[in-house]
Amino acid sequence: MSPRILELTAHDVRFPTSDFGDGSDAMNPDPDYSAAFAILKTSDEGLTGHGMTFTIGRGTEICTRAIEAFAPLLVGRDLDDIEADPGAFWRSLAGDSQLRWLGPEKGVVHLALAAVVNAVWDLLARRAGKPLWRYLSDLSPDQIVRCVDFRHITDAITPARARELLEERAPGRAERQRELERDGYPAYLTSAGWIGYDEETLRQRCREAIEAGWSHFKVKVGADPADDLRRCRIVREEIGHERVLMLDPNQVWEVDQAIEAVGALAEVDPLWIEEPTSPDDVLGHARIARAVRPVGVATGEHCANRVLFKQLLQADAIDYLQLDGCRLGGVNEVIAVLLLAAEFDVPVCPHAGGVGLCEHVQHFSVFDYLCVSGRLEGRMIEFADHLHEHFVAPVRVERGRYRLPQAAGYGVEMKAESLARFAWPDGPVWRERGSGRP
Amino acid sequence: MSPRILELTAHDVRFPTSDFGDGSDAMNPDPDYSAAFAILKTSDEGLTGHGMTFTIGRGTEICTRAIEAFAPLLVGRDLDDIEADPGAFWRSLAGDSQLRWLGPEKGVVHLALAAVVNAVWDLLARRAGKPLWRYLSDLSPDQIVRCVDFRHITDAITPARARELLEERAPGRAERQRELERDGYPAYLTSAGWIGYDEETLRQRCREAIEAGWSHFKVKVGADPADDLRRCRIVREEIGHERVLMLDPNQVWEVDQAIEAVGALAEVDPLWIEEPTSPDDVLGHARIARAVRPVGVATGEHCANRVLFKQLLQADAIDYLQLDGCRLGGVNEVIAVLLLAAEFDVPVCPHAGGVGLCEHVQHFSVFDYLCVSGRLEGRMIEFADHLHEHFVAPVRVERGRYRLPQAAGYGVEMKAESLARFAWPDGPVWRERGSGRP
Repeated sequence: MSPRILELTAHDVRFPTSDFGDGSDAMNPDPDYSAAFAILKTSDEGLTGHGMTFTIGRGTEICTRAIEAFAPLLVGRDLDDIEADPGAFWRSLAGDSQLRWLGPEKGVVHLALAAVVNAVWDLLARRAGKPLWRYLSDLSPDQIVRCVDFRHITDAITPARARELLEERAPGRAERQRELERDGYPAYLTSAGWIGYDEETLRQRCREAIEAGWSHFKVKVGADPADDLRRCRIVREEIGHERVLMLDPNQVWEVDQAIEAVGALAEVDPLWIEEPTSPDDVLGHARIARAVRPVGVATGEHCANRVLFKQLLQADAIDYLQLDGCRLGGVNEVIAVLLLAAEFDVPVCPHAGGVGLCEHVQHFSVFDYLCVSGRLEGRMIEFADHLHEHFVAPVRVERGRYRLPQAAGYGVEMKAESLARFAWPDGPVWRERGSGRP
Repeated sequence: MSPRILELTAHDVRFPTSDFGDGSDAMNPDPDYSAAFAILKTSDEGLTGHGMTFTIGRGTEICTRAIEAFAPLLVGRDLDDIEADPGAFWRSLAGDSQLRWLGPEKGVVHLALAAVVNAVWDLLARRAGKPLWRYLSDLSPDQIVRCVDFRHITDAITPARARELLEERAPGRAERQRELERDGYPAYLTSAGWIGYDEETLRQRCREAIEAGWSHFKVKVGADPADDLRRCRIVREEIGHERVLMLDPNQVWEVDQAIEAVGALAEVDPLWIEEPTSPDDVLGHARIARAVRPVGVATGEHCANRVLFKQLLQADAIDYLQLDGCRLGGVNEVIAVLLLAAEFDVPVCPHAGGVGLCEHVQHFSVFDYLCVSGRLEGRMIEFADHLHEHFVAPVRVERGRYRLPQAAGYGVEMKAESLARFAWPDGPVWRERGSGRP
């Protein structure tokens, strides 16, 4: 008997990270790393599914409300039916006409869609007893193509071309998997360079990170230009020229200002400039990319959907694609974007950090290497060393590389104790603070 | 004493329009026209502010939740302070870092921002005793520029250039106002051509509309190509070649499919093709526009923000700009987009219909003619003859033209009786139906 989905519940969980300046950047001075969880119960008592979308505090309650809005579209569905046609399943949710109006395919409803869709993939992978990367990699090219809704991207990639591309990558898969099992997947570190850190903290974090084996570092910029340069010089001084530095102003610049600012930071030799301006500005990114190369342009953590990524690729606007697995509409749309990136030969370096992001994006990067791009050059997963202790199967990172996750599922099941303790507004952590925390 | 904002309440109001096929199109087969209202009380007991965002049923409750999330940013604020720097006021809401993460500047949070911001403008205009168009038109160029947050659009228009453009338009304003008072503002009709109407209804609606003085008609397409052609031929037959026909497939086509479909409909000689593909696809619209001209490309009702409109204009992707005053982040962002459109010399034809849209967008078109573009050529406001009876000061349309609104404020105050009767899920209309209406 195929399990049926019986219940969808939504959970608002917030961590008071702004107390310590963790996660601070030029656009987001005081994030409280948070998540809206979707948890699915099924007719198989032992089988629950866990998905989430990442938020930074206020407004998480809007996302939980949106997750609940998907319940009538999910409850009663049969896992075998979903597995038989995952693309149709996805479109039945993403394409619900009344909910779609509120995006379309962007903003809160799309964030909630991600949580819900990812919870369903968690069910599918758990039922198969496999970590998600393994579950996806064991699908045939044809099955992978059937996961994707190609609506509005067929001018860049068709189902037939996607199948062809996946078939081209099939040889060597087993060897690539052995390689990842042995060496892990490359990563870079964000949590040394938050904008709220003072010089001593910055130096200390860099030294600790080098000690721990990190070779790629991201620094937040976009404050005062002189201060940006000062902080970047400190980091470059600490990490030396044999290690790699990336910069991230988190969207605060105008297009022309970005071009000028990157010029002024050239002496610290950055690999990329990330989110130099509005994440919606395809043409702006294209102009910046033309002006600042060989510095690369990276963006994607705020790209709402496959149509925006399609354009960034068509316009030759990005050198690194930073998809977010819970801002895109979940696994199905992530696969669409991995296929687009492979077609345009642009490396995918997923957005992570926050809470739960590292735990899930690792599955996508591994799947990308095994089945889609087949390459590691220029590819790495973001890492920030925060809040992993709250997960049942936390990410394992060693010497600057992600170890292959082994637990069955999608990877974001939070410990029941953490779900309760940090529940907003009634968990003990928030009740102590008076809950209506500013 | 300047009034202070004391309270923000949110209201979920839904009309069971799907019962009659009103509003049906290729993407949205069964909309229940709805709105999330933001109502502000002030320390001046006689002064309340009313704003809304338009929705089509399920999910409106997510928008009301998002409206409530803005309360802490609004309650306690002083109207004189807001009026002194409306741009800074807008950014303090749109730029709240934690809420911004959930867009940014798109989706549910941006829809809610529109409702809240527009309610504040309602307060300002009511306090001045003027309809919004008049309140805006009486601002100086410098004051108008101070309404706008130019973040992420300065590569297309700077504050200085905006001021210059507004100063160029100042002469002749009084004469243009007399002209509108005499003749009204041009409009086109959508409610004759819903996709759910059968042939007899379609013919009947066209005849009634011609009788009522309409000269511009929009027809929904995007279903089966043969059926599209059949329905368009019927409408063209009814309206003759001396009247104007526009087509709207509501995003259902791929880029190449759109080019082909417009070719196949060329014989009915449409003025424009509206929303031919994904509203996020700037490059796709540009390709379609190049291929189908002299048929124009129109889009905008789903364009989330000024950055997307900037790109549609920069890429020469649209011939008609259809902003929506409650999908953009309210009056301030509408002004930004009017300025961009004027700078690129593209006519603005606002999205209306639904519920409350006609009531408010008329203010923007009038303001555009008086102060921003100074032109009427190619410009008209959408009109659909639904649900106006629920408003305290409903739109007045005569012989296919909007009459200048006279009541003070923004125009979307709903009658208390309607707010109560159609309240979801507890109003009598919904309770009768068992409320959890599918």
